Amino acid sequence: MEGIVEVLSAVVGADHVRAGEQLRPEDSHDEALGAAPVVPVAVVCPGTTAEVAGVLAACTEHRVPVTARGSGSGLSGACTPVAGGIVVSFERMDHVVDIDTVGHVAVVQPGVQLDELDAALAPHGLVYPVRPGEYSASLGGNVSTNAGGMQAVKHGVTRHHVLGLELVLATGEVLRTGGRTVKSSSGYDLTQLVIGSEGTLALVTEVTLKLQPRPPHAATVLAPFSTLEEVAAAVPQVIARGVGPSVLEYIDLLTMEAIRAEYGIELGVPDDVRATALAYLVLRLESSHDDRLDADVEAVAALLVELGAPDVYVLPHGAADALIEAREKAFWLAKANGADDIVDVAVPRGAIPALMARVAALGETSGSWIAGCGHAGDGNVHLAVFQPDAARRHEVMTELFRTALDLGGVISGEHGIGTEKKPYFLALEDPNKIALMRRIKQAFDPAGILNPGTIFDLGGTDR
Amino acid sequence: MEGIVEVLSAVVGADHVRAGEQLRPEDSHDEALGAAPVVPVAVVCPGTTAEVAGVLAACTEHRVPVTARGSGSGLSGACTPVAGGIVVSFERMDHVVDIDTVGHVAVVQPGVQLDELDAALAPHGLVYPVRPGEYSASLGGNVSTNAGGMQAVKHGVTRHHVLGLELVLATGEVLRTGGRTVKSSSGYDLTQLVIGSEGTLALVTEVTLKLQPRPPHAATVLAPFSTLEEVAAAVPQVIARGVGPSVLEYIDLLTMEAIRAEYGIELGVPDDVRATALAYLVLRLESSHDDRLDADVEAVAALLVELGAPDVYVLPHGAADALIEAREKAFWLAKANGADDIVDVAVPRGAIPALMARVAALGETSGSWIAGCGHAGDGNVHLAVFQPDAARRHEVMTELFRTALDLGGVISGEHGIGTEKKPYFLALEDPNKIALMRRIKQAFDPAGILNPGTIFDLGGTDR
Repeated sequence: MEGIVEVLSAVVGADHVRAGEQLRPEDSHDEALGAAPVVPVAVVCPGTTAEVAGVLAACTEHRVPVTARGSGSGLSGACTPVAGGIVVSFERMDHVVDIDTVGHVAVVQPGVQLDELDAALAPHGLVYPVRPGEYSASLGGNVSTNAGGMQAVKHGVTRHHVLGLELVLATGEVLRTGGRTVKSSSGYDLTQLVIGSEGTLALVTEVTLKLQPRPPHAATVLAPFSTLEEVAAAVPQVIARGVGPSVLEYIDLLTMEAIRAEYGIELGVPDDVRATALAYLVLRLESSHDDRLDADVEAVAALLVELGAPDVYVLPHGAADALIEAREKAFWLAKANGADDIVDVAVPRGAIPALMARVAALGETSGSWIAGCGHAGDGNVHLAVFQPDAARRHEVMTELFRTALDLGGVISGEHGIGTEKKPYFLALEDPNKIALMRRIKQAFDPAGILNPGTIFDLGGTDR
Repeated sequence: MEGIVEVLSAVVGADHVRAGEQLRPEDSHDEALGAAPVVPVAVVCPGTTAEVAGVLAACTEHRVPVTARGSGSGLSGACTPVAGGIVVSFERMDHVVDIDTVGHVAVVQPGVQLDELDAALAPHGLVYPVRPGEYSASLGGNVSTNAGGMQAVKHGVTRHHVLGLELVLATGEVLRTGGRTVKSSSGYDLTQLVIGSEGTLALVTEVTLKLQPRPPHAATVLAPFSTLEEVAAAVPQVIARGVGPSVLEYIDLLTMEAIRAEYGIELGVPDDVRATALAYLVLRLESSHDDRLDADVEAVAALLVELGAPDVYVLPHGAADALIEAREKAFWLAKANGADDIVDVAVPRGAIPALMARVAALGETSGSWIAGCGHAGDGNVHLAVFQPDAARRHEVMTELFRTALDLGGVISGEHGIGTEKKPYFLALEDPNKIALMRRIKQAFDPAGILNPGTIFDLGGTDR
């Protein structure tokens, strides 16, 4: 394996290859709970698309597995290196290439972080409205997992905002897919196929994104409810009212208390109301007009009281941002509190009560703690599972995923399958569908070098 | 070939197979200009997914080409039958299976027409907001071409509203892709891959659609401008204002006069203004509140005057609907007036002036008439090309498509490639990309029975 490091050093320059003692601890894992770190042979940091092409051509020739890495903030193990393989890190390809203020399009390299993109767009009054919880995540990683986040209830997910890609295939061929337009009916949509493919089909070297005007006014409303069922029942009513919330989250009691303990945010909810609140709904409205925002907040507040909230609190901006941020960081809280695994199933929003009832029953019968919060508006529920026994946890997780599928949902709403949800995916998904995915993988990557063992294995068995 | 008719009759029942003298003239073509009709061996009308599976398994076994057909309103030849092949018509699979008024989801069979779906949704206060020009089109056909239409500027296109599919592969395997949720990161997005694949990858037997609340108020504004350049320049300004128009169309002088002559719509534009108007902008705003709509209309009208419109006309509802419908039927007008071919390129909206300048120059140098209208808000331009000489027309069309690609656009924004745009697609697109599409096709349909010759040919040469 000495050979491949030299070959790749010749492609990107020796200064841009880390191997042996130069490797950093974080090179060996992403943020998936419980995924075993794997030390790669090398981390290669190309600076151009041509260098990415050279790296992949060499890796196909030498049959070296390749794992792409952005910020490494993934939660499913998709950027855990493969034993004997290399990591292609996009840390040097981190430029905002273009911001088209007329067409409302941005072109970015994969290593650009969400917070960096936002800082570049704000002065133009534009926004990329996809808001996954981790703002240090890279756009390349977002494309890889089809990242979603809080604002999907209004704005959709990554795949709804990517207009085109530059791709490098495993063989080193460079392709441009899509364009700078929303509409395209010009052959198979390779852009959409690569989005969410978790680094298994191609490496993304440039992303063309759809932007929109940045709404100048926003307000955040917090409504305590005495049961989770009431919260779940309120969600479709709010959506049906047509005010188009940009955030519509539920937070259960355990999670809210953990947020309060950790961050000490003052939400203005009196103690007597808090004492009876078992769940909270957090709602954010945006508007181009201040007065419309006020009227919408008033209408939504009245509706929420009608639906059972004892009172409704319009949060001051500081507290609102702090709560939203704390909600986004709920994963870290779960991790700090010793969660053994996490789930991000998505179900139809009308099925949230049924899912919650099943979760409660499962927690009880299995002796597990299951706490959470979620994107209630789009049915994407984040659960932290506290169950130290691996076999029992596997049963609980399997049952959670099976329930989501039975309810018309999916195994992962936004984190991806990676390596950590693969056993459940393979066990519960239609084998014919997985077989078709394997054939598609073959069409892209005949030597199977791109992130093998993520989502599924080419041979048909788990690694 | 007698054999296959009997085999398929055994699958769907002899009453549901048309062959020989029972075939209808419309079975042999769609609405593509200039595509030569092809009489199929039979038209098979399955009533269930299981029957579709039986038909496809038999066709793969007997190597019989299969062309799927919804309403037959396509404009690119993708449902022209293949010589020696059959047509699978979804005329019997035309049921709205479910309307989930809580989750805002509809499940439909492929033969359901857009107007039928709209009639079923209206009583629930819901809407499927994709609005292609032809409302008799089927949802199956819409999925097949990734249909777009007028409201894409606000609501996106078909692929943004399809949550899941039931598919039958060429071998007869039945798969369910996606779910009833907006978010999914659970393996390759087969739903998105099949959308826009024009019947070449799988047959769609059920579609799960995302709905939204039906906005109760709408207003339509007409603004004449003295040049097309002014119209094009106004578009990004309107978008940047953040009012979110649901329709933002331009209509050139030739097309507007043809609409006026054909439909006699009274738009209230005085003769002196008409005399100086070379192009029109049509804008529709929607709102949940009457007063907000009025305020937005006023703001947009003031902006348009600022941008050069001599005056702005808020159309009475009857005239507004008539104009929008006439605009949607512009294809029929072009056809009736003897257009030789049509183009539906999409370019970044900022590139519309450059495209228009090229169109004008091309018209002049080639001695062709090129007239049009288009979805200005999303850069999707519809042009009718009047040039009877086939060779010269081919040059003009090639140059138009090449220009669109050079400007960051695509060959077809919403009609699809079909058979009629295939020569241009093959000549102008990256051969490596087409080779990858061919490998994907192989992964789905190894025997190559599904709509062979549409988009590309498996062998690599045009049919």
